[in-house]
Amino acid sequence: MATSTTKTGQPMDRAVLESVLRRRLFYTPSFEIYGGERGLFDYGPPGCALQANVVDMWRKHFVLEEDMLEVDCTMLTPEAILKTSGHVDKFADWMCKDPKSGEIFRADHLVEQVLEARLKADKDARGQKVEVDEAKEAKKKKKVKDAKIEKLDDAVVQEYEETLAKIDNYGGDELGELIKKFNIKGPTTGAELEPPKAFNLMFQTQIGPSADVPNGYLRPETAQGQFLNFQKLLEFNQQAMPFASASIGKSFRNEISPRSGLLRVREFLMAEIEHFVDPEGGKKHPRFEDVKHVELTLLNRKTQLSGSTKPDVLTIGEAVSTGLVDNETLGYFLVRIQDFLLKLGVDHSKLRFRQHMANEMAHYAADCWDAELFTTYGWIECVGCADRSAYDLTVHMKKTGAPLLVRETRAEPLVIEEYQVDIDRKKLGPKFRKDAKAVEAAVDSLSQELREKLSIDLEKTGKIEVSTPGVGSGTTELDKDLVKIEKRKRTEHVREYTPNVIEPSFGIGRILYSVMEHVFWTREGDDARGVLSFPPTIAPTKVLLVPLSNHPDFKPFIKKLTSKLRKIGVSNKVDDSSASIGKRYARNDELGTPFGITIDFQTVKDNSLTLRERDSTKQVRASEDEILAAVQSLVDGSETWEQVAQRLPVFEGQEADPTEK
Amino acid sequence: MATSTTKTGQPMDRAVLESVLRRRLFYTPSFEIYGGERGLFDYGPPGCALQANVVDMWRKHFVLEEDMLEVDCTMLTPEAILKTSGHVDKFADWMCKDPKSGEIFRADHLVEQVLEARLKADKDARGQKVEVDEAKEAKKKKKVKDAKIEKLDDAVVQEYEETLAKIDNYGGDELGELIKKFNIKGPTTGAELEPPKAFNLMFQTQIGPSADVPNGYLRPETAQGQFLNFQKLLEFNQQAMPFASASIGKSFRNEISPRSGLLRVREFLMAEIEHFVDPEGGKKHPRFEDVKHVELTLLNRKTQLSGSTKPDVLTIGEAVSTGLVDNETLGYFLVRIQDFLLKLGVDHSKLRFRQHMANEMAHYAADCWDAELFTTYGWIECVGCADRSAYDLTVHMKKTGAPLLVRETRAEPLVIEEYQVDIDRKKLGPKFRKDAKAVEAAVDSLSQELREKLSIDLEKTGKIEVSTPGVGSGTTELDKDLVKIEKRKRTEHVREYTPNVIEPSFGIGRILYSVMEHVFWTREGDDARGVLSFPPTIAPTKVLLVPLSNHPDFKPFIKKLTSKLRKIGVSNKVDDSSASIGKRYARNDELGTPFGITIDFQTVKDNSLTLRERDSTKQVRASEDEILAAVQSLVDGSETWEQVAQRLPVFEGQEADPTEK
Repeated sequence: MATSTTKTGQPMDRAVLESVLRRRLFYTPSFEIYGGERGLFDYGPPGCALQANVVDMWRKHFVLEEDMLEVDCTMLTPEAILKTSGHVDKFADWMCKDPKSGEIFRADHLVEQVLEARLKADKDARGQKVEVDEAKEAKKKKKVKDAKIEKLDDAVVQEYEETLAKIDNYGGDELGELIKKFNIKGPTTGAELEPPKAFNLMFQTQIGPSADVPNGYLRPETAQGQFLNFQKLLEFNQQAMPFASASIGKSFRNEISPRSGLLRVREFLMAEIEHFVDPEGGKKHPRFEDVKHVELTLLNRKTQLSGSTKPDVLTIGEAVSTGLVDNETLGYFLVRIQDFLLKLGVDHSKLRFRQHMANEMAHYAADCWDAELFTTYGWIECVGCADRSAYDLTVHMKKTGAPLLVRETRAEPLVIEEYQVDIDRKKLGPKFRKDAKAVEAAVDSLSQELREKLSIDLEKTGKIEVSTPGVGSGTTELDKDLVKIEKRKRTEHVREYTPNVIEPSFGIGRILYSVMEHVFWTREGDDARGVLSFPPTIAPTKVLLVPLSNHPDFKPFIKKLTSKLRKIGVSNKVDDSSASIGKRYARNDELGTPFGITIDFQTVKDNSLTLRERDSTKQVRASEDEILAAVQSLVDGSETWEQVAQRLPVFEGQEADPTEK
Repeated sequence: MATSTTKTGQPMDRAVLESVLRRRLFYTPSFEIYGGERGLFDYGPPGCALQANVVDMWRKHFVLEEDMLEVDCTMLTPEAILKTSGHVDKFADWMCKDPKSGEIFRADHLVEQVLEARLKADKDARGQKVEVDEAKEAKKKKKVKDAKIEKLDDAVVQEYEETLAKIDNYGGDELGELIKKFNIKGPTTGAELEPPKAFNLMFQTQIGPSADVPNGYLRPETAQGQFLNFQKLLEFNQQAMPFASASIGKSFRNEISPRSGLLRVREFLMAEIEHFVDPEGGKKHPRFEDVKHVELTLLNRKTQLSGSTKPDVLTIGEAVSTGLVDNETLGYFLVRIQDFLLKLGVDHSKLRFRQHMANEMAHYAADCWDAELFTTYGWIECVGCADRSAYDLTVHMKKTGAPLLVRETRAEPLVIEEYQVDIDRKKLGPKFRKDAKAVEAAVDSLSQELREKLSIDLEKTGKIEVSTPGVGSGTTELDKDLVKIEKRKRTEHVREYTPNVIEPSFGIGRILYSVMEHVFWTREGDDARGVLSFPPTIAPTKVLLVPLSNHPDFKPFIKKLTSKLRKIGVSNKVDDSSASIGKRYARNDELGTPFGITIDFQTVKDNSLTLRERDSTKQVRASEDEILAAVQSLVDGSETWEQVAQRLPVFEGQEADPTEK
């Protein structure tokens, strides 16, 4: 695997980034003064603002641009719904218990860690150079007992590597076999592990005071609320298809053993789209034409099963036309997802789309591509884009009887030729009494195939035999007095169908963390100051106001600027602490604030201001009006810093030495 | 109680409003196709947009205007935190079980319903006119068995009324006594009820795979996450006091028997502020001067305990100076809360602030004022503004040892005169050996009072006796060789204190529902069309685009307008259905869209547009540029419709009759 680098190509040191993020309160472990609780994190002010900006951009990029119907459904979900959706039975990971210590491990993660540690030890033994961050990684991975430096047979190395490439494809039994085969023991005790057991990942709870047993769950996804409201949303959309609903909200997953910081948490913000589309006609998308030239990096299922991770780069047009990506709608969303991620500041070279393998897919999915971002944790799934087919609407309709389907007047009425059965009810009733209804239902539900066969029987023998479970012997004889079977034409004016669902599903927390890795770098020269180069649109604060000193003359200027910036919708903070200007800007580079405005004695004289850009540390100086207009166009993206720096006079201040005056 | 009216003074029929809100998918019962789950509701597209706009306004009005530190903490909360905060023991309602039917009732609500029904029956019996909506209310209130029309003694009427005025003030035992005293039985069975039992309102769950018993809860408020992060927030704020944190997110309450639609739900969006303030110096607020002239409607504790609900109207300046409202900070926030509610479209005459009675207050509160809005359900608590004193920070600090306090360099060093004890450690060690440390600790912890007394003993007798539990007989004698006690002066440069917390806490769902009642009215004339007169800032959609017909010439204009409106940040929808323009606008009045733009054949000729205002249905006609500029200034509030209607030419179209070419 490639090593991870910062935005400017420096080797990435996760510890340095994490220290910045915690010090500046982007996030912090929840309940830390109580010792913390694994897999739960709080966002502090800059993280919270970043998250709000990303959510806002998501809403504009998807909900508003594509006219989606946003809904907000509850997280508390009664058991019946998740039983039907399959989550009660199937939403589980495999866990292994160490009987000696009582520790619980996620089985696939354990196999992965042990094999990676052994491969690393093998490399060491062979004297191969181990990349800096890989070595650190291996060190951090729990003290795996058997990771002594030991050379492996070439065949074993190959077997390990192939197993790792397919790790997401194994079920519980297979993981159990791998653990035995590779002789994997309890990492701290060396004891034989118990066989993998399924652990349901949903949090259970009891809704209402009267139940004695848990009768509900916290939702594992926002999707179910959207499906249950399908009928109402279709009605709201005045029956027009296709359409999409969308939802932003927290979901929950009771992870077996969460590590990996913000990447594996028990409570997380999701943004999900359910795009409902007619399954007939190849799931075309009206805007596909506009995007088909866009190139994507695609790692397909076949490549992975062959034990490789080498992706293909091709246009989505090619990918769809060759069947690699199943249909236009799925392809359209992959492009839109890529657009969104790039807008956030994702490094294009650290983005790929990986197709799920068969066993890896969620129980409801027919196909799935993940947008993965490369970080110091490796490739991380940040957005899933699944084709859930008609799975969910079908099971909920079957369970509740609610018509979760589309009724469409046919442009051309459809003429159907079929076998129809006429029953003489006047005779049927007296003959079968209480069973008459069951018999009639059995006849009505006969397939066309059976009807054809029975029509021949009826002609030949004058009677037919129909399977009627629960009535008499289970088979009922009906003669031609009672039934008549004929092939006839029928005209259908309305078409009914269950839409298919294409679901782009975003893990906002994972995206935030990955973006923070992608935009981070350290400024060389002075003692390695960290910088978070967020694009202005998502930066937590857009402008820092820095008065040269605490001089009272500066106060009215600060007040005026704050209120003017607020009025044009530009979030800003004042730092009038006594630290040097250089230190104040350094603090601010760590917070990712793209612009700084200095107020000095020249400002008091002529109302001119200095505007500083975070990444280049270059400054320009101009009148208040010009500077404010420049800030607004920089923040809304209508101008770049290069353009502003060309048209406004450059200012050569000494940022790091603010001792003047 | 007064009867409820619409925005225009019509009698309010809640059923009509609810039918509009459900039909237009503002909200809908969750899981309806599964029979629904009480106390859980989903927001559909207009409700969701309304909620997002209100949250956005809240963030601007409080977080940005007042430079608060917004955080986003987890909902899952380990038990230890809520044990310390008091919620595990005290966050409960009183429930009564009907042993015959197994039904469970909330005790205070049951008493309230029965007494109200009896009072209503009494009025009927006395032949008094019962207001329309009260009658309806009484009908809806569960078939209360004993509500036959029966005249009551005057003394009984008075007792009932006094009980109702104090209903929030009763504990479990008192409610049990009232149930006996007033002979209240199971409403459906007539059976004697079981005595009230506390039912904890938190949802329990199990975090992680290894616990055998529930070890966590869903948070009942967002506040705890803010308290636990106090130290980090103070540090982030560069140690400056006072400051406020803020949080917007879902909280949970396992209501015993939720009814009342959106007003009593088990999962709800809260927006909470924790303003940390120095308890010394009267909790002044720097901006109090700016607001002290603002009038508020205040219903204080004393008035309620006297059995009355007549509020006082006075300026917050008067209220604070007379001690009615405890301090400036509390007063400042009451005004800011009122400002916020009025911006949302709340009817000023339906807003009051009610002070909590002693037993009604949450266990952590020292004082509390609720902003209540009048609706068809009566006066509804929508915002609580509590003084939590130092309660939470103190208990968490005591439990964890984390320094949840402020250290402040004193402007003037504080000189303290106190008794100090000197111990001769060289002699103490050899004498007491393993007990030396315990003896020293016992001496160090002596109070000033005791030290003074002991200094006299030491002078008189040459020795002192100190209580040392666990050492020897429990009392240890020390002579003047070992200890010396002197009164000396000490200078303290740093002051340490635990801040007090003023907490404005907003129930967003209750606010949304109450606003919808306040802005609703029906247009008379045509068949009672409902209108939701949201202020433009919070309206779900700002502009409806209505092409006269499906004519293809209109399409490019629609496309251009949609994109121009989006660019200036104005949300808009197109209704190009085949319904008449009148019908399309009627649909839209129900959705609360303030403006409509019609595209007709004149538009195709000269690019002019018609702009219609929702409440007046008046229209103006002007060029595209003029109309777009007007829309922008109407939406951002810089111009009113009256101003626009005066400067742009009025258009006399026939909205209801769109047959004109």
